[in-house]
Amino acid sequence: MQEKRIDFESDGTQLAGCVLEPRTGMPGILFVHGWAGSQTRDIERARTLARLGCVCLTFDMRGHGADADYLTSVTREENLHDIGAAYDRLAAHPLVDASSIAVVGSSYGGYLATVLTAEKPVRWLALRVPALYRDSGWDRPKSSFSRDDLRRYRSELIDREENLALEKAMDFTGDVLIVESETDDFVPHTTIASYVSAFVSAHSISYRVIEGADHALSTPDALSAYQTILVGWMREMIYGAR
Amino acid sequence: MQEKRIDFESDGTQLAGCVLEPRTGMPGILFVHGWAGSQTRDIERARTLARLGCVCLTFDMRGHGADADYLTSVTREENLHDIGAAYDRLAAHPLVDASSIAVVGSSYGGYLATVLTAEKPVRWLALRVPALYRDSGWDRPKSSFSRDDLRRYRSELIDREENLALEKAMDFTGDVLIVESETDDFVPHTTIASYVSAFVSAHSISYRVIEGADHALSTPDALSAYQTILVGWMREMIYGAR
Repeated sequence: MQEKRIDFESDGTQLAGCVLEPRTGMPGILFVHGWAGSQTRDIERARTLARLGCVCLTFDMRGHGADADYLTSVTREENLHDIGAAYDRLAAHPLVDASSIAVVGSSYGGYLATVLTAEKPVRWLALRVPALYRDSGWDRPKSSFSRDDLRRYRSELIDREENLALEKAMDFTGDVLIVESETDDFVPHTTIASYVSAFVSAHSISYRVIEGADHALSTPDALSAYQTILVGWMREMIYGAR
Repeated sequence: MQEKRIDFESDGTQLAGCVLEPRTGMPGILFVHGWAGSQTRDIERARTLARLGCVCLTFDMRGHGADADYLTSVTREENLHDIGAAYDRLAAHPLVDASSIAVVGSSYGGYLATVLTAEKPVRWLALRVPALYRDSGWDRPKSSFSRDDLRRYRSELIDREENLALEKAMDFTGDVLIVESETDDFVPHTTIASYVSAFVSAHSISYRVIEGADHALSTPDALSAYQTILVGWMREMIYGAR
């Protein structure tokens, strides 16, 4: 609970007042889309979570959405800045309790969201099919990476001390949700397992697999399963926190 | 739930985003002190209700608090403007749901709070020992009224169609709490009864008497009884509404 002295005017006269307000605002949820994706994929999930009493922010990273021409030259560093700017915008929202922020990222967005936790206070981190990249080329266009090389890299269990995102994951002390797609051609189980085993300081870990789902959740069943998992987890986190 | 398109900057680039937020904010509670009183009397009650999840505003009306020199010339019309300005300030608070505003007034403040309900949306109205005045002299200094005449006026049951405040009370459709002090030298039972019988359109009426209490609630027991009644009623109203 906080108290603030204020002045306000009535017929040109200054009156003295005091506003008393509960300190606890609402949780804020930042949605981070995947590579070559956009905020439109997250909007339904954001609506559902806003109805549960959260303030949600979806956005298009640089090179995505209306700015897709730039996709070939955008770097991970630039997109991490974008997520940081979106985070700041959400945290400054007057309804949001800045100590209760969740970041929900898919694939490339899950990778960057994990890196973000080292820069911004994140209480809850939801990663759907989080991707992994070699550390090299951090500030080079992401589109220039070899697909074959990425496939090789992701097919092995990666030591958590040898990858930037996994290193940040080791220090994360909030709650984590990791959702795998069973038949994912881009992010195989080994990559998911690398993430799960990296969160050594987490307050809680929930790891789920959506059976029969591909990377993009192309079927209505897969989409709805993810929605159920994400909303159920957020509900548990929020009501537990309240 | 509402959705707003926003733009924000990242490294000088404009990004497109969408904020989704629950429509329901917190209840706002406006405290209106009595004649020759000040906001300091309300601050403890405001703290308690802020802890329950409400945004509270206390303030000093013109001629009161630091501005007490003006007390001899201030009019009911001016103080009603002050309450209106305070109401607007509270309703504009970003955490407040402007359709869930309570006004809590004592004595002179209860009288003016009742008149305010005709001008501003008030959902819950709590009146402690609400005073009554003749309609005449609305824009003349309130301090000029004869005490003897007021005593006579208040000792009778007043027809609800023949008094400005009671007329406004007839149209009020929200919930009402009316609290009487058993041994009140300024606001006798007849005045309280005039109020209770005027709220013919109210959604609910709670009428309570604090035994042994005087007009100013001079004893700790009387103060604490009022606190219990007010907080219990607000809790019922808020949780009922949620």
